[in-house]
Amino acid sequence: MRIALLGGTGDIGAGLAVRWAYHTHHDVVIGSRDPDAAHDAADEYAEAVASHGRERKLTGFENAMATDRADVVVLCVPPYHVADTVESVADELDGDDILVTPAAGIKREDGGFRSHAPSAGSVTALVADAAPDDVPVVGAFHTLPAGRLADLDAELDIDTPVVGDDDSAKRQVIGLAEDIDGLRALDAGGIGAAAEVESVTPLLLNVAQNNDGLHDLGVRFQ
Amino acid sequence: MRIALLGGTGDIGAGLAVRWAYHTHHDVVIGSRDPDAAHDAADEYAEAVASHGRERKLTGFENAMATDRADVVVLCVPPYHVADTVESVADELDGDDILVTPAAGIKREDGGFRSHAPSAGSVTALVADAAPDDVPVVGAFHTLPAGRLADLDAELDIDTPVVGDDDSAKRQVIGLAEDIDGLRALDAGGIGAAAEVESVTPLLLNVAQNNDGLHDLGVRFQ
Repeated sequence: MRIALLGGTGDIGAGLAVRWAYHTHHDVVIGSRDPDAAHDAADEYAEAVASHGRERKLTGFENAMATDRADVVVLCVPPYHVADTVESVADELDGDDILVTPAAGIKREDGGFRSHAPSAGSVTALVADAAPDDVPVVGAFHTLPAGRLADLDAELDIDTPVVGDDDSAKRQVIGLAEDIDGLRALDAGGIGAAAEVESVTPLLLNVAQNNDGLHDLGVRFQ
Repeated sequence: MRIALLGGTGDIGAGLAVRWAYHTHHDVVIGSRDPDAAHDAADEYAEAVASHGRERKLTGFENAMATDRADVVVLCVPPYHVADTVESVADELDGDDILVTPAAGIKREDGGFRSHAPSAGSVTALVADAAPDDVPVVGAFHTLPAGRLADLDAELDIDTPVVGDDDSAKRQVIGLAEDIDGLRALDAGGIGAAAEVESVTPLLLNVAQNNDGLHDLGVRFQ
């Protein structure tokens, strides 16, 4: 499988890139608005993986070119950029591709971090609205601690709840997630249930902020 | 400490009652609108605890009488009854008591279970609005699997995120929660952050519904 990480120069992009490169044989393509930044990040991630004993080639391209090369496109951009980013690559997407969104809307208020969903109800629903009709959209990876993901010495032992209305696409993303050692993917329902998944992200920040010794947290359902 | 479980004849009341009776020396008082039902439930929980080798006396009273006897009052009623229940016991509450709410608003929609918060923003905020001004309100126990809680043979090994604006009250509830073996309580912020905690309840239902072999789930932050 060929996976493009758009906005893949950021935290969650770095984490997913090094994990997929290290633990799997999928092709990992880094996308960015700036192709030089994409290329540099790809080299940097390849070095991180090489320093753990695996020689992998990652490539970097402008977002639309990265999308054109991919089967699965992960939108590693902030929630307020997802709609623009989907529009900017829409011509390169077709019904054989899968669009994956890990973003969660968050605002800071009295009492802690709060979920701040777009008017569509969730970032996943926003992406589904913005995507071409025939392109399946899957929400996943919202609750992964980016720092631990990027640190190949760190154990994960956490879950990622996955939502989507297209069962086949959801199964494929669950498979890609579980190709990463220590990551269990759980079906959390349709896109209508995405807000409950995206709400976990601010909760993790609140728990990390208010409890000594807990940081870079993930979640496990048990 | 004396703990009253209002609506303590239901699932979460049963679970908390047998755990506190079994694992701690706190006095457990079952409240119900029907004092006979409260009394019968208290006897039933005492038997469950006795069958695991510990003789404990639980008592049962009408909700207001149970409240009058308690230091900590847990509202084990459905979310649409919490405001009425608080009103019905308000005369028995004072600033030395702590009111604890484990309820989460849930509705069923396309795509799965959804969070359905009252207009106050969360059930915890609704309870805070309904409670006398000097009575501290703490949200806790939302994500506990009632069946596993009530089964003293079952291991917990899960967390409960706790929210509240009164630090002393929150600390006391965290202590009561951690008196139960296998339960870790985590400070998840103020009442303003309660909605993110209450949203985990429908997410747990969605994960249990969509994944074979997972049911009666709790959550662990790690």
